[in-house]
Amino acid sequence: MKLSEIVKLLNGKLDGDGEVEITGVGKIESARPHEITFIANPVYEKFYNSTRAGAIIVSRSFNKHLSGDRKVPVIIADDPYLAFVELLDRFAPVVELLKMGIDNSAVISKSAEISPDDISIGAHCYIGDECKIGRKVRILPNCVLMAGVVIGDDVLIHPNVTIYNGCRIGNRVIIHSGAVVGSDGFGQAKNKDGTYRKIPQRGIVVIEDDVEIGSGCTIDRATLGETLICRGVKLDNQIQIAHNVVIGENTVIAAQTGVAGSTKIGRNCIIGGKAGFVGHIEVCDDVIITAATNVSKSITKPGVYSGYRAQTQKKELRQEASLRELEILKEKIKNLENKIKK
Amino acid sequence: MKLSEIVKLLNGKLDGDGEVEITGVGKIESARPHEITFIANPVYEKFYNSTRAGAIIVSRSFNKHLSGDRKVPVIIADDPYLAFVELLDRFAPVVELLKMGIDNSAVISKSAEISPDDISIGAHCYIGDECKIGRKVRILPNCVLMAGVVIGDDVLIHPNVTIYNGCRIGNRVIIHSGAVVGSDGFGQAKNKDGTYRKIPQRGIVVIEDDVEIGSGCTIDRATLGETLICRGVKLDNQIQIAHNVVIGENTVIAAQTGVAGSTKIGRNCIIGGKAGFVGHIEVCDDVIITAATNVSKSITKPGVYSGYRAQTQKKELRQEASLRELEILKEKIKNLENKIKK
Amino acid sequence: MKLSEIVKLLNGKLDGDGEVEITGVGKIESARPHEITFIANPVYEKFYNSTRAGAIIVSRSFNKHLSGDRKVPVIIADDPYLAFVELLDRFAPVVELLKMGIDNSAVISKSAEISPDDISIGAHCYIGDECKIGRKVRILPNCVLMAGVVIGDDVLIHPNVTIYNGCRIGNRVIIHSGAVVGSDGFGQAKNKDGTYRKIPQRGIVVIEDDVEIGSGCTIDRATLGETLICRGVKLDNQIQIAHNVVIGENTVIAAQTGVAGSTKIGRNCIIGGKAGFVGHIEVCDDVIITAATNVSKSITKPGVYSGYRAQTQKKELRQEASLRELEILKEKIKNLENKIKK
Repeated sequence: MKLSEIVKLLNGKLDGDGEVEITGVGKIESARPHEITFIANPVYEKFYNSTRAGAIIVSRSFNKHLSGDRKVPVIIADDPYLAFVELLDRFAPVVELLKMGIDNSAVISKSAEISPDDISIGAHCYIGDECKIGRKVRILPNCVLMAGVVIGDDVLIHPNVTIYNGCRIGNRVIIHSGAVVGSDGFGQAKNKDGTYRKIPQRGIVVIEDDVEIGSGCTIDRATLGETLICRGVKLDNQIQIAHNVVIGENTVIAAQTGVAGSTKIGRNCIIGGKAGFVGHIEVCDDVIITAATNVSKSITKPGVYSGYRAQTQKKELRQEASLRELEILKEKIKNLENKIKK
Repeated sequence: MKLSEIVKLLNGKLDGDGEVEITGVGKIESARPHEITFIANPVYEKFYNSTRAGAIIVSRSFNKHLSGDRKVPVIIADDPYLAFVELLDRFAPVVELLKMGIDNSAVISKSAEISPDDISIGAHCYIGDECKIGRKVRILPNCVLMAGVVIGDDVLIHPNVTIYNGCRIGNRVIIHSGAVVGSDGFGQAKNKDGTYRKIPQRGIVVIEDDVEIGSGCTIDRATLGETLICRGVKLDNQIQIAHNVVIGENTVIAAQTGVAGSTKIGRNCIIGGKAGFVGHIEVCDDVIITAATNVSKSITKPGVYSGYRAQTQKKELRQEASLRELEILKEKIKNLENKIKK
Repeated sequence: MKLSEIVKLLNGKLDGDGEVEITGVGKIESARPHEITFIANPVYEKFYNSTRAGAIIVSRSFNKHLSGDRKVPVIIADDPYLAFVELLDRFAPVVELLKMGIDNSAVISKSAEISPDDISIGAHCYIGDECKIGRKVRILPNCVLMAGVVIGDDVLIHPNVTIYNGCRIGNRVIIHSGAVVGSDGFGQAKNKDGTYRKIPQRGIVVIEDDVEIGSGCTIDRATLGETLICRGVKLDNQIQIAHNVVIGENTVIAAQTGVAGSTKIGRNCIIGGKAGFVGHIEVCDDVIITAATNVSKSITKPGVYSGYRAQTQKKELRQEASLRELEILKEKIKNLENKIKK
């Protein structure tokens, strides 16, 4: 594909030779002469002179004066990263993950309803009684869907995923390996003799449309009713979602975060990795929680929160700064004490 | 079932019409007219006027004056939550997870001894040489039991669980999906050239009776001897138990907690989520560790401990409060300095 | 084996009766009369008088005066722990994990190239198109290798492991159960309407020689290029490695640590459990990070770092100490204020 054609495709502006032939995409450090790359973050501008790439997608604010002797053609785009993603989809080879059809080794209940349309079910899968599986669904090898699981259209389930009985998965959902959807919530009532009695967990998990669930996530079923992952939520790896939790639309959560029982997180939130939420609280829409923050109270105002015990980031950073000055404060007090003695 | 019959069953006291017909259970926010619900926590009393439930189980301290025009029949019980659990077991449909018998696709060693009594072993399970499996055991699809694993009676193992060779599981144990029992402890001895040599891990894991293990937990085998999860322990999801750890009877641990090698935690402890324990320490009986607390020294007195570095909760909260006053302290010191200058 | 022979084997020095017959190894608390044990850590010297072991491996600094009436023969060794490991390998029974050959229930693509040499592939494994598997490889039951996975020689993969398409595993690698290698990196670009668009993850994961990966680890594939786990790295359980991360040679990482996208950790580092690293930073060689430390900036000097926000351990401990003195500082300020008033 000629660079001039890519320029049109991306609706960008060309600065350089449009005749260059582009056959692939690459990272700026390692792209080859017929590959196109991008600079979205200024810290990567330092690679401009050394890259072997055939062309670079840059933003309007890209500093042309960086260029040395060699002139690499650039495409100026509104959002170089999104433009590059567009090309990724076009150039990078998509691996066909599985052959169409149902593998002979899969064990599928006679009462399961599986759309015949573009389905692939891999080796050693188990599909329980009365499951319902939509169109264009790919279930990779060694997945288990217990009885009554409902899967929408266009869903991709990677190997070794478990979905417990009765859980419902929407359309265009992606679930990565090792994830568990619908295990029992942690409900234990203390008996008088100190032992515990298991509270039956009779609810389900509902995963709405366009959700992605990372590898090793665990999402517990509700005691009664539903644990709910709303439309457009994106979960990174090893996230723990307890029973009766609700995660609002288009909220993204980074790896190793945990949300305790019955907590509700709003829409359009951004949650950093290793964050923790105690149970029975509410976090409103449009909240940003930084990595490793522990949220122990409800949050009612949009904003950025951080700290070992979550505060507004502003307060927390000020406190952190004060803490680093403690030594100086101690010194000052000693001086004052000495002066007063005199 | 008539409400009057439920009253007898729960050994409670009725206030209202005993003729109401109850056919199920529900949450107070969403229960339907023939369902019974409960209020254990006063914060849910606000739903009294709006609930559509046919009856409510309440505690002795329930405030009757809340009731508006509509009179919902109530059952007064010692512990409304436990009473409700009783009804859950009776009303909510229990899904039969698996058909009796051994699925044709399971691969079972000839030397494995499996009780013929009420057993179910799901599709694609692997049962290794000389395993011993007791009565009324359900092993759901795609589980792997390596050689010499011993399983007691009345055990439920959810899909995609792995149990390494030689590990022993007691009676009435529940293990959730993705859990791994018996992987190698993290033993690495540094060589002089900076590389590491693997310390063979030749011990096992012993899970005693009435233990529940959450989804995604990993419990490592001992170097020598046993990693021991004692009777009645309840583990939430994604908990990491290192080699040679001992968790005492009836201790409950919330999700994403980690316990490093050779640490011993006592009986009747309650450990919050995301807690961490360094290796080679001991925590005595009856200790409460709050969520996200890191325990780096042995604990010898019962009580509540919390903080980024665990202290008694009392100390930790006072310290936290002081920290929030740091700005004021700085101000005070500045004032003192100014006064002295004068 | 006579104790005198063991002394020669370990190149140690004997103090006691060399004729004692040794038939196994044990922990000092529980070793039996014909077993040998060791004391590497002085805290275990207290067991010297009570151990029933037939002999003990000790270090040069071992305090002989501890010995009571009973004289247990000791072997003095440079490194008692490594000497013991030597014996572990010799005495403790190694369980043969799997029969040689390929189980009938495994589903293996015709285009996969599998060395016929000492291979074992367990029940219900899936080996995708064009996989290449080396000599002396053991793949335990229920593992999934998607298309194009390359495995070196002498590799051991425990049950229920998933390796996504195209990932490459070196020689002498061990991967524990439930681990996931090559799941999609967490790349989500925000659209103008608040929804997210998935960034295709077209790179792979490369695991070099002599790496061990603990149970439940998740290692994401790169967006482009490689996520790289270098030679000799040892990962404990439930570790999260994000896309495009590089972990340098002979670095060891304890359980539940997370490393965010594109971060590079150097060689010979020691990372404690539950540590966290933000994305796009670099940690130089020979760094020690203590447990539960969060690293939010690049580290350019070798040393020990710790704290909720990583600092040099020296600074962090001083700060921690100051914090504990805050109450006293408050008191001092109050006194100063009173004196000045007077």
